[in-house]
Amino acid sequence: MTGLRLTRYQQLAEDMAEAIRGGLLRPGERLPSVRATCAQRGVSPSTVFQAYGHLESIGLIEARARSGFFVRATRRPVRAGPEVAPPRREATPVAISELVFDLLGSTRDADVVPLGSAFPAPHLFPFDELARSGARAMRRLKASQITGALTAGDEGLRQALRKRYTLQGVPLADNELIITNGAMEALNLCLQAVTRPGDVVVVESPTFYAALQALERLHLKAVEVATDPKEGVDIEALGELLARQKVAACWFMPTFQNPLGALMPTARRQALVALLAQHRVPLIEDDVYGELHAGTRRPPPAKAFDSEGGVLHCSSFSKCLAPGYRVGWAAAGRYAPQVERLKMMTSLATAIPPQLAVADYLALGGYDRHLRRLREALATQQRHALRLVERHFPAGTRVTRPEGGYFIWLELPPEVDALALHHRARACSISTAPGVLFSADHRFTHHLRLNVGHPGDVRFDGAIRTLGRLAVDLQAGR
Amino acid sequence: MTGLRLTRYQQLAEDMAEAIRGGLLRPGERLPSVRATCAQRGVSPSTVFQAYGHLESIGLIEARARSGFFVRATRRPVRAGPEVAPPRREATPVAISELVFDLLGSTRDADVVPLGSAFPAPHLFPFDELARSGARAMRRLKASQITGALTAGDEGLRQALRKRYTLQGVPLADNELIITNGAMEALNLCLQAVTRPGDVVVVESPTFYAALQALERLHLKAVEVATDPKEGVDIEALGELLARQKVAACWFMPTFQNPLGALMPTARRQALVALLAQHRVPLIEDDVYGELHAGTRRPPPAKAFDSEGGVLHCSSFSKCLAPGYRVGWAAAGRYAPQVERLKMMTSLATAIPPQLAVADYLALGGYDRHLRRLREALATQQRHALRLVERHFPAGTRVTRPEGGYFIWLELPPEVDALALHHRARACSISTAPGVLFSADHRFTHHLRLNVGHPGDVRFDGAIRTLGRLAVDLQAGR
Repeated sequence: MTGLRLTRYQQLAEDMAEAIRGGLLRPGERLPSVRATCAQRGVSPSTVFQAYGHLESIGLIEARARSGFFVRATRRPVRAGPEVAPPRREATPVAISELVFDLLGSTRDADVVPLGSAFPAPHLFPFDELARSGARAMRRLKASQITGALTAGDEGLRQALRKRYTLQGVPLADNELIITNGAMEALNLCLQAVTRPGDVVVVESPTFYAALQALERLHLKAVEVATDPKEGVDIEALGELLARQKVAACWFMPTFQNPLGALMPTARRQALVALLAQHRVPLIEDDVYGELHAGTRRPPPAKAFDSEGGVLHCSSFSKCLAPGYRVGWAAAGRYAPQVERLKMMTSLATAIPPQLAVADYLALGGYDRHLRRLREALATQQRHALRLVERHFPAGTRVTRPEGGYFIWLELPPEVDALALHHRARACSISTAPGVLFSADHRFTHHLRLNVGHPGDVRFDGAIRTLGRLAVDLQAGR
Repeated sequence: MTGLRLTRYQQLAEDMAEAIRGGLLRPGERLPSVRATCAQRGVSPSTVFQAYGHLESIGLIEARARSGFFVRATRRPVRAGPEVAPPRREATPVAISELVFDLLGSTRDADVVPLGSAFPAPHLFPFDELARSGARAMRRLKASQITGALTAGDEGLRQALRKRYTLQGVPLADNELIITNGAMEALNLCLQAVTRPGDVVVVESPTFYAALQALERLHLKAVEVATDPKEGVDIEALGELLARQKVAACWFMPTFQNPLGALMPTARRQALVALLAQHRVPLIEDDVYGELHAGTRRPPPAKAFDSEGGVLHCSSFSKCLAPGYRVGWAAAGRYAPQVERLKMMTSLATAIPPQLAVADYLALGGYDRHLRRLREALATQQRHALRLVERHFPAGTRVTRPEGGYFIWLELPPEVDALALHHRARACSISTAPGVLFSADHRFTHHLRLNVGHPGDVRFDGAIRTLGRLAVDLQAGR
């Protein structure tokens, strides 16, 4: 495990990216030449090439033959973000599950191209190394490790996680870390720890359907708050809401929000944590995509700004290292005792062998190297998929371009009903995740979440083309 | 995996045990000599010795030097079962958790002798073989096994389990088997699948505290039904209750009930399933100790008599093969779709590596051999522990003598408050599970569950002696 100090090329890339995002370098403008940059920064040409290569891979700049590097134009119409419309103000009971199961059931078929799936391509993960780690860990296993007081999880793994948090600038309190059966269990336990049936919980709009299902299962009411595809939850609207009604908790995803991909800016995160602390409302922070940032730095979680233990930070290794191992966790702040008790009551403890496999893998020190490769592969594939969308989807389609994760969110022209598109795609053996899944109020009827986490898979390219064609047909009333 | 056909020695032992239980052979009576039995049954002397050895190990007979084998006396006062008192008739909200956590928190300390723990000794389990199976399974692992449609669990393991059910005379319907994070998760999911907050659920009295905690967590009400230490739930009382009020489910443990160890006779199981089918009330059957029978045959679960899918049968490998692996399951009958959905919503799927380890181990064929050794070790230890209790506990103590599992249940003289005993024992670094843990109505104030699953552990022997001495002190008002 390595720290967060940036290498020279990362620092250079970061500075350039800041300059581009801040408007110092404008779309179409040429970047300083490699020679000039070497002289100016006192670095080697290979460092500059590495930095520029990285910026190219995340789509900020492009190389033009014999001309150098240029800031990419970002104002093509199709790239404009989807619009934000305010959701209903009233709390509503949730009844989304039937729809989710009905729609997602279709992704189980191996012949279907899973554009609607939530998992990236398996070949992106180091299964062989993990299996070796698992075999090694199990040979070393002592019976006492397996029958002791296990509810909070294996101490070695918890230690490794605590170290990682600390290196990322988020020191944890003693005993607030509880290993769970994936982030899904962590989120569900945290939600139950801070609510009672009938309570109101604030979610994003659109929001991850599993959050809506969790609310439904626990007989809670949802209030949705408008969420910007770039900036995340509308803090002002949230403030008004909190002044207006009693809220038991917020369940948000500030980093690469599912489905929007929104990355809430740091200042807004701070404001969010302060606002919730003021109202004593706990924040359940779903951060499963945090490690999959296209930029050089991992965005600090909201948890980083929490001094009162009000943020319950949930994550896992399922999306970035070890799907199927079901190793997740909650850093549950002042609610950790309740979460641990609920864990004990509902599943006693998390399976030990996968925890030991992951702990062994982390101890080997290759995790950050793996993550760098994974991020680059996902960023490259996002650019590729966006080009396909631009080329094949109807005019007027808007699409997000998240700075991490592996989803893009499409707003189709109003004439294209996403559920109709879903059914037509299904007939062509393509699954999609239509927008209605992501709202208790059945909004987002012409929206779609696409999984772009399958680099080099020609079936996915073909499926995106087909989907675009089907959308064009629907738009034309065919 | 072997079938259920008995070997010659098992058949002989079973016949003798029947004769003893049925009163054909009385306490103190001499068994037929080995020679006579050989002639009568046409078997070899070694078969007879094996059979008699087994009966001795489960405490039905005893060898006397140079005299042969004799039926053991069972009518010593201390061996009489505890009394059954009818519980309250009203449904009560449950608030047991604080007490459970408070008391069980004390078992975490490695210096404490865990007489109150729910786990048997780790050395009873084949951790090395399991680790080898795990290592082998993980090397063979394909990425597709890990990212597919996994909610119901690994297909190989499910296949092995289905085969085992079939060999035990309980064929399962397609797709009713769902692998879970231990039996605890299976039971919790099943309970949630058949209830809504405020519903009434019937439990045994005394009952496993985790059932009470699950009810509390889901905001359900408990009605307790008197449960006999030998025969299990009072069916007549249950029938009256069902006629009187609306009940959403029953959560029972017909086989080696925790804490009583009661083994409900076959005819009563049939009557129970018929009664519940008549009222369309689902039965959540907790069967985690079923494999730990001291007799030669595994008692058929209530599920065996269910033709309408009303029994949700839950079990795991945690108590008989692989603690810490958290591999359990529900055979959820007609409620399987709801249970699978809840599983998906709360923890998505069960970790794959431990499932593959167990499946590989089962495929090797040594499981039943391991179980036979485990059963003998537990039965021997129960006899040993009962002798210690007889010798060291106050006169008037009553104790169960279950035909399986590894708990005994003590009814202390009325002057001995079990909670006071618990606290005194705690000061001597001994944990216990006092009776009040096992009732929502705070009954069983002078009762105690003791873990006798630690063969050959002198610390346990010493702790039982100490506990007896402390009880004698309390009885004497010291």
